Amino acid sequence: MTPVETKFAGLATENAPGQEVRLAQGAAAPGLVGEELPGRSVDFSHGDVDAFPPVNGALDAFVEGFHRGGSQAYTEYLGDAGIRAELAARLGAFTGAPLTADEELIITPGTQGALFLAMGALVTRGTKVCVVDPDYFANRKLVRFFEGELMPVTLDHLAAGEQAGLDLARLEAAFRAGVEVLVLSNPNNPTGVVYSAAEIGTIADLAARYGVRVIVDQLYSRLLYDGRSYTHMRATTMPRENLVTITGPSKTESLSGFRLGVAFGSATIIERMAKLQAIVSLRAAGYSQAVMKTWFAEPEAWMQDRIARHQAIRDDLLAILRGIGGVMVRSPQAGSYLFPKLPELTIAPLEFVRALRIQAGVIVTPGTEFGPNGTGGIRFNYSQDHAAAVAAVQRVATLVGRYRRPALARSA
Amino acid sequence: MTPVETKFAGLATENAPGQEVRLAQGAAAPGLVGEELPGRSVDFSHGDVDAFPPVNGALDAFVEGFHRGGSQAYTEYLGDAGIRAELAARLGAFTGAPLTADEELIITPGTQGALFLAMGALVTRGTKVCVVDPDYFANRKLVRFFEGELMPVTLDHLAAGEQAGLDLARLEAAFRAGVEVLVLSNPNNPTGVVYSAAEIGTIADLAARYGVRVIVDQLYSRLLYDGRSYTHMRATTMPRENLVTITGPSKTESLSGFRLGVAFGSATIIERMAKLQAIVSLRAAGYSQAVMKTWFAEPEAWMQDRIARHQAIRDDLLAILRGIGGVMVRSPQAGSYLFPKLPELTIAPLEFVRALRIQAGVIVTPGTEFGPNGTGGIRFNYSQDHAAAVAAVQRVATLVGRYRRPALARSA
Repeated sequence: MTPVETKFAGLATENAPGQEVRLAQGAAAPGLVGEELPGRSVDFSHGDVDAFPPVNGALDAFVEGFHRGGSQAYTEYLGDAGIRAELAARLGAFTGAPLTADEELIITPGTQGALFLAMGALVTRGTKVCVVDPDYFANRKLVRFFEGELMPVTLDHLAAGEQAGLDLARLEAAFRAGVEVLVLSNPNNPTGVVYSAAEIGTIADLAARYGVRVIVDQLYSRLLYDGRSYTHMRATTMPRENLVTITGPSKTESLSGFRLGVAFGSATIIERMAKLQAIVSLRAAGYSQAVMKTWFAEPEAWMQDRIARHQAIRDDLLAILRGIGGVMVRSPQAGSYLFPKLPELTIAPLEFVRALRIQAGVIVTPGTEFGPNGTGGIRFNYSQDHAAAVAAVQRVATLVGRYRRPALARSA
Repeated sequence: MTPVETKFAGLATENAPGQEVRLAQGAAAPGLVGEELPGRSVDFSHGDVDAFPPVNGALDAFVEGFHRGGSQAYTEYLGDAGIRAELAARLGAFTGAPLTADEELIITPGTQGALFLAMGALVTRGTKVCVVDPDYFANRKLVRFFEGELMPVTLDHLAAGEQAGLDLARLEAAFRAGVEVLVLSNPNNPTGVVYSAAEIGTIADLAARYGVRVIVDQLYSRLLYDGRSYTHMRATTMPRENLVTITGPSKTESLSGFRLGVAFGSATIIERMAKLQAIVSLRAAGYSQAVMKTWFAEPEAWMQDRIARHQAIRDDLLAILRGIGGVMVRSPQAGSYLFPKLPELTIAPLEFVRALRIQAGVIVTPGTEFGPNGTGGIRFNYSQDHAAAVAAVQRVATLVGRYRRPALARSA
């Protein structure tokens, strides 16, 4: 393989969320047994913005931006200055630590855009990067693309009680071994666990002691269940110049179709990100940026209703999953991901995901996408029509029953 | 400097188009002489979409996309399959060589996004890349970012007669020396010259002979003056598997605020670009993609009118520029860039650009942004209000007169 072929061999996307349409369908399905189960198809690989539409006013804000014309079409690489000023005030209040609009905030093409730019700003050939296992699939791919060195740290969420379950001793050992960058999502994707105040405090202390830069992906940090508290890394002992927080309105707020995100924190890192933005895509779509005016400005009742409805779906799906023998699952504390670990099956994990698609009309993301420690899990984004999601997960239960390895065979 | 600092040192953006708002303004302007010239400010760093608005129906297409909901918000990384099918047919017809929607086309966040993905798909550490001097400023920055090796080839457009003026002997020497990738814009940015059929034919033959991959940026290839013919590289001897063509509706069609572009050609390269898109920003904004339905579907009279109006502005500005002693300028054959070379001045080129901004209310892009061979030039994007552009270029003429180095001093 040529050097560039080697680089791209690490970026496989065939099992990535949203790409299932490109997988071969068709009748040929060797290894599958039994009939197809009837029912409305549900794509759990991402949220359904038809079930949870954007806040009223989002489209109006876009149309106003369009009519504003050239000044909205051609913003600075960082994004429109007026919109950045509004966002800086709101994000400072939300995270408990103020920020300046001029140097500490960039509007990006989605939270993915923010993550790419932040990683590109900090990781180059040989940079040692701590990545949580399991965590968002792109984290590992980005380290590989920028030719950094992956230093995985396990998150054992199923055994962690009130903690998220990060192996903090392993984290410190990695920091001591020369890690320069830590990237993590909080709440964790795919498990939905929230790092405790103690865990965030320890991570911040360690990062400060070893001079590690931290990228914290807080994409789901507004959708908290049961009145749970949330510790923003920005409001800890973490040195401000070494921290970038990323988030965006694509999930809880259902604005994914506008491709909007933000990164904020260290002025040095944000400046590099703007330079990179200049050669990556110039700016987040100018007219879309205007939609940011509605973000963190939603009616309070709207957000409370959104959380309550997600919590109700979560609870119904959890009850079904916990009724399946051998399934282990922890209740998500935030966000809209459920990540059950399946019992041993008679077919391989990727084959089971395929069986779900073909036989049950259910699309899920295989746990292996999130790291070796995700093996055996499947991820559901349950931001879906409630009744359709319940019926779909019941079909999943049926298929687990169909493909479960008999206890005798397991003990053999 | 750390390795990552070194990487970003090559990505300076302070003189890049559209970033002028971040430059220190204020009264302190040492070295400037004389009074400020009154008149409406004109920002020639990019086109004015208020003077040349998008085609009717663009916003409607977006709104329809929004109401289509989830299927439009979450497309494949390549972009919505139905829209790709429409575009593939139109782009195949436009470029004189058919293409398949499924594997040979990707919708990107602007043409910049297409360029980034194409370069990322082909350039890694040590890849030798031919870049034209002068050419679009991001080409060189992208080679540096991906740690390729720059192999510049001069375009002498002022001395080239009916040719664009690329040094084809130097190009072949570079290919012989191991170049793997050639990137060029046609029409050339910043000069507005169009490569002749003979030049494109030779480039294609050489690329075929030496196995060089070619990225051709045809962003302005629809805005052709005087009924000029245009040779699409796709419709030559250039091997299909080694060619990617990029373009988009941000310029002639004024759709920049939606951030849309395309790349099409080699299935191998497009596949890599999709993998990279997955970690860069997932997809072009889903709702924006719907606006592509209006592209290459504009009323013919609309496009003819747009070309005629740009040509009229071009001719008026050329007349003013040619009336300034010592200015050398070639009439652009396509697009909306004028790139006059200024006479020797009493202040440095970047200082003169600053004087234009502060004393004449005129923003232009310094020629040095486009490569060493651009030194002494300034770039105008004259897709502007006609009268305002004429008045602004007259102010430029006044300031050239004010800062022109006397003939005596020149000969000294």
